[in-house]
Amino acid sequence: MRSASRGRGRQVALRTAVPVLPDGVSVTVRVPASSANLGPGFDCLGLALGVYDDVTVTTGGDGVQVTATGEGSAGVPRDETHLVARAILRGLAVAGVRVNGLFVACTNSIPHSRGLGSSAAAAVSGLAAASELIAKSGVGHPFSDEVLVEQASEFEGHPDNAAASVLGGAVVTWITPGGTPVYRSSRIEVHPDIAATVFIPSFESSTSETRGLLPEMVPRSDAVFNLSRSALSVVALTSDPRLLLEASDDRLHQGYRSAAMPPSADLVGKLRGAGQAATISGAGPTVLVLGTDEVPAELLSYAGDRGFTVRNASIADGVSRLA
Amino acid sequence: MRSASRGRGRQVALRTAVPVLPDGVSVTVRVPASSANLGPGFDCLGLALGVYDDVTVTTGGDGVQVTATGEGSAGVPRDETHLVARAILRGLAVAGVRVNGLFVACTNSIPHSRGLGSSAAAAVSGLAAASELIAKSGVGHPFSDEVLVEQASEFEGHPDNAAASVLGGAVVTWITPGGTPVYRSSRIEVHPDIAATVFIPSFESSTSETRGLLPEMVPRSDAVFNLSRSALSVVALTSDPRLLLEASDDRLHQGYRSAAMPPSADLVGKLRGAGQAATISGAGPTVLVLGTDEVPAELLSYAGDRGFTVRNASIADGVSRLA
Repeated sequence: MRSASRGRGRQVALRTAVPVLPDGVSVTVRVPASSANLGPGFDCLGLALGVYDDVTVTTGGDGVQVTATGEGSAGVPRDETHLVARAILRGLAVAGVRVNGLFVACTNSIPHSRGLGSSAAAAVSGLAAASELIAKSGVGHPFSDEVLVEQASEFEGHPDNAAASVLGGAVVTWITPGGTPVYRSSRIEVHPDIAATVFIPSFESSTSETRGLLPEMVPRSDAVFNLSRSALSVVALTSDPRLLLEASDDRLHQGYRSAAMPPSADLVGKLRGAGQAATISGAGPTVLVLGTDEVPAELLSYAGDRGFTVRNASIADGVSRLA
Repeated sequence: MRSASRGRGRQVALRTAVPVLPDGVSVTVRVPASSANLGPGFDCLGLALGVYDDVTVTTGGDGVQVTATGEGSAGVPRDETHLVARAILRGLAVAGVRVNGLFVACTNSIPHSRGLGSSAAAAVSGLAAASELIAKSGVGHPFSDEVLVEQASEFEGHPDNAAASVLGGAVVTWITPGGTPVYRSSRIEVHPDIAATVFIPSFESSTSETRGLLPEMVPRSDAVFNLSRSALSVVALTSDPRLLLEASDDRLHQGYRSAAMPPSADLVGKLRGAGQAATISGAGPTVLVLGTDEVPAELLSYAGDRGFTVRNASIADGVSRLA
């Protein structure tokens, strides 16, 4: 609850001799999925979910070689254009070091293009792996959480997801006004009784497309509606889960986007009508339910009958090094 | 942090014989001032301030006789049309009881028409006094906090102020969607290191007039700006006061209203530029600063030179019975 990013943390320096990491250094990082918005907190509330991608990075070889198994591994590039590889290289560049080559092994459990922050998780995992490689090699210091959030947000564009994957728990994120934007974030400690259920549809959604459905101007009354629920969400998440249903109500994005994902919009309505604090996860189409009790079986059946895969998920800690 | 109003609490019942409170029953209630909005939380965040009005109500006599001393006492009526008297009578009506007559003695410290919730405090004090008279007379039960918030909000129209004066601490308030609106609220526990400084100008402001300065439609980006700060305000107020300055930033109301109160707008700018978490209190023109340290002397001088009266105020508990 006390973490807040400060400053840009850019550490690029002009050097005539750039340090090279030794070959044969290996680290494994684990990064959680995330859910953004949580209903009212459009572009500013996020939550880390206990569904993980693991990335093992080993220095050596020539160029970048990527292997991937699990979610979304079929269609991705195997070279330095792979998202995780690009994030690793960016991290090394920020730190002012380089490598001869890299082996990158991805084991993915976070579904792609479903509103569960897989891209932000990839960015965070790559930057965290770079940080850990540098620390393990003894050529520099690991990045602070603030720098990880800042770099991942700049790189990938979704600070609410990135901050959740870095810091864990729930997060409030904001961008400083004026001049060059600085991505800032604060972790809030989620009440231990709260757990998540995610309803993952078989179809995908494009954040950039669904964002185009949102109007530039909104009624002030709708803004005020979300303001109160956004503040209330922090109360509900930290100390009074009984308020989760009311706190997760929204008038600023889900209604505008519902036509892009009718089955998800229908499921959110069905769940909320039954007293479940259901929201669209990020830009969708996954549906998130937060609560202290299990979702009743008849609602799970309703979702299952409509092609949603149901998954229970704990609230996760942030990115960590496994080895 | 755990209090949330539920249900309407209307207790009016059709009775052939309305109970009459005995003469000679006396209670004194103390009600705190309040500050609404706190920057980003337009119409949904409030804070109880340690500046108090006291009201002593005694049953007896014929009709309603009001005496008043202190702030704003010169221009107010002395009969049943006095705001506190009207709130007492409403409370009695809601409870389904009546009195032969009332003596009402008001000792006021809350400045009027300055954005410090004096009207909401008057409503809360009257309703709370009615509640205590009923309980002390043994003819019924006192109102719950939820009923007090609901009745005071309906009666006076500012639930963020009313809830702060009832519950104390800081509050999040919201209105239920659909059908007849229900005013709901949740108290949040303010970090013990946080105190308030209020800068009270000599000029007054009308909430209804300044409200007319606000547009019906607002940029979505401004709404999102405030959403993040509204959520962050709860974090800053409860656990991380270092974030108060950033959390108290606003794009939805203060800018639109600044032309109606140039000295206050100037002072907010001056204070914020010096790192103080300054906002317009409610609809103004008082300026509120929240922080863990005293406001530096040069800033107090700056405000004093421009006609502002500076007052330190603790974060207060809600309305209470003194006798």
